[in-house]
Amino acid sequence: MRKHNFSAGPGALPLSVLEEAAANLVDHHGSGLSLMEMSHRTPGFESILFEARETIARLYGLPDSHEVLFLQGGASLQFAMVPYNLGQGAYINTGVWSQKAIEEARRIGPATEVWSAKAGGFRDCPSPETTFDVAEGTKYLHLTTNNTIYGTQWRHVPEASVPLVADLSSDFLSEPVALDKFDLVYAGAQKNAGPSGVTVVIGKRDVLRSFTGAESVPTILRYKTQAENDSMYNTPNTFGIYLVGLVAKWVRDNGGLVGARERAVAKSAALYRVIDNHPEVYRGHAAPASRSRMNVTWNLVDDSRQKALLAEADRRGIIGLKGHRLVGGLRASIYNAVPETSVQALIDLLNDFAAGKV
Amino acid sequence: MRKHNFSAGPGALPLSVLEEAAANLVDHHGSGLSLMEMSHRTPGFESILFEARETIARLYGLPDSHEVLFLQGGASLQFAMVPYNLGQGAYINTGVWSQKAIEEARRIGPATEVWSAKAGGFRDCPSPETTFDVAEGTKYLHLTTNNTIYGTQWRHVPEASVPLVADLSSDFLSEPVALDKFDLVYAGAQKNAGPSGVTVVIGKRDVLRSFTGAESVPTILRYKTQAENDSMYNTPNTFGIYLVGLVAKWVRDNGGLVGARERAVAKSAALYRVIDNHPEVYRGHAAPASRSRMNVTWNLVDDSRQKALLAEADRRGIIGLKGHRLVGGLRASIYNAVPETSVQALIDLLNDFAAGKV
Repeated sequence: MRKHNFSAGPGALPLSVLEEAAANLVDHHGSGLSLMEMSHRTPGFESILFEARETIARLYGLPDSHEVLFLQGGASLQFAMVPYNLGQGAYINTGVWSQKAIEEARRIGPATEVWSAKAGGFRDCPSPETTFDVAEGTKYLHLTTNNTIYGTQWRHVPEASVPLVADLSSDFLSEPVALDKFDLVYAGAQKNAGPSGVTVVIGKRDVLRSFTGAESVPTILRYKTQAENDSMYNTPNTFGIYLVGLVAKWVRDNGGLVGARERAVAKSAALYRVIDNHPEVYRGHAAPASRSRMNVTWNLVDDSRQKALLAEADRRGIIGLKGHRLVGGLRASIYNAVPETSVQALIDLLNDFAAGKV
Repeated sequence: MRKHNFSAGPGALPLSVLEEAAANLVDHHGSGLSLMEMSHRTPGFESILFEARETIARLYGLPDSHEVLFLQGGASLQFAMVPYNLGQGAYINTGVWSQKAIEEARRIGPATEVWSAKAGGFRDCPSPETTFDVAEGTKYLHLTTNNTIYGTQWRHVPEASVPLVADLSSDFLSEPVALDKFDLVYAGAQKNAGPSGVTVVIGKRDVLRSFTGAESVPTILRYKTQAENDSMYNTPNTFGIYLVGLVAKWVRDNGGLVGARERAVAKSAALYRVIDNHPEVYRGHAAPASRSRMNVTWNLVDDSRQKALLAEADRRGIIGLKGHRLVGGLRASIYNAVPETSVQALIDLLNDFAAGKV
């Protein structure tokens, strides 16, 4: 039986994508070799990369001013690449990953924190009315659109006097976003977009291609290097990029980003409803206005019963519910590929547990 | 029909490994999910990573003083990580990748070139008698054990007054090497060890774990960060590491590194024999004493006939023979997973071509 997979990432992938990859793993569409054996310097692989790039660009309706790169190293490497390439930033702190982004930027140069949800226990993202005072010399304002660990998510694109940069790792491909409003966004693929080991970077062509950082910045860490080489300055993660392309097509064929958002709204609303319906048992973490549609986080009022709940989840084939080791509690990550049937299985469990049937 | 794949990388993988990966891609050994959907923070994935690490350590007979990491970014990122972590280096220049390693080191700090094969057209690696004068303050001597583009390979581990560091990308897992003589080696997996997107780093535990570089070095680019986190400081390339583990077991089950060397010696000797037997048609690039057992490089005496040879190769299902775009000519990469039947098919082609039958 296929598990109900609520892992925060690597997370669930569409079954049809896995089946297609499996069927073609040994012999890629009759080519006589596995895609993993194919040189990246062949038309066969290049067309896969170009198509993946194009599918993502079309999903977001990207203007010609922007382009898509496939890199390695995850968001953690982007935390360094962004300041290496763009200079001094202002950062909005909405959780663990925002904080790490700030810390890494500060290794490289000055970086300011212009807003923080820390005092409130990271339950909020800034409201649309919030403004951000950026210091003289600031080249960009950085935000984390979805906070995987705390389960909060931005509901708007902020206005700013400097270009926007965002970490989209955990809500990439989950809803329409006006990416033309950003100079640069990045996302580890392992939530909504594919397996781990691929980082998608989308940015303004002229920003990516005009390196203005220090001479000491390694060639491989300059966006210009990869942009001018179609993400193939060195050997990319070929199999990972192929999977990202398949997932992007699956999103396209299932209503695009509007369809993805509809399903995310429905799935998350259903889960938050159960949590809200049983305040004597469950306590949601995020402030309602900032609730994530990707990562639903909550605690048991009686924390000592968590083990029993997780054990029953396991018996029902429901996995990945344990909260991040830094914060504890429970978390259900309901990325694009988590089907409504899995969400229903979780709802049934939570209702049964609240009713004392577990 | 399965192609005869002589690609320089990504290159051929063992058929049995591909078949096992395909059979388990949708449902990993009855776990109810794909390995690609499995959180790296689970015992299920951790045991895969630990086993891959252990298999590689045993293949090389690594002493306890050394440990294995799985990183991202390829050798190109190691070109920066080595000087970031170890400081000032002396470099032996045996080809394009050595040169890139030097260039990247020089962005970060002083680096000296202590030997170069450039004047001789990169046909040689240093002989066992060669000694290297390293400057005061040098922390390591860097070499590239196999030069994919020029088809040359070291035949010995040099003596040096400073610790050794080596790029093993294109002959990793192809023969026994006394890795305890090195402070650090690294290898992109996509030649002998797996798909692209995984970099294997093997180093002395105390070197990896005691970061002495600058405060400005990003956390993710410090070996200490990944060593202390079992290569899972951030999300690793989980599927790639799984494949590397399968390939390492395949090497183990086929005579280990001694068996790999025997096959590499036999396959390369057979190919060099055809080239040497037809001096009127073929001209090997590497000096005989430095000939690579992984990448056999040669030119046609009559360059204008190359197109016809490649066309016939294509008709016979032989791919990946075109030399690197920087040097031209022909190259047959005969990594571990290239079977003797493929080498025989290439030999037949070269004999037929020399006999005017093509």
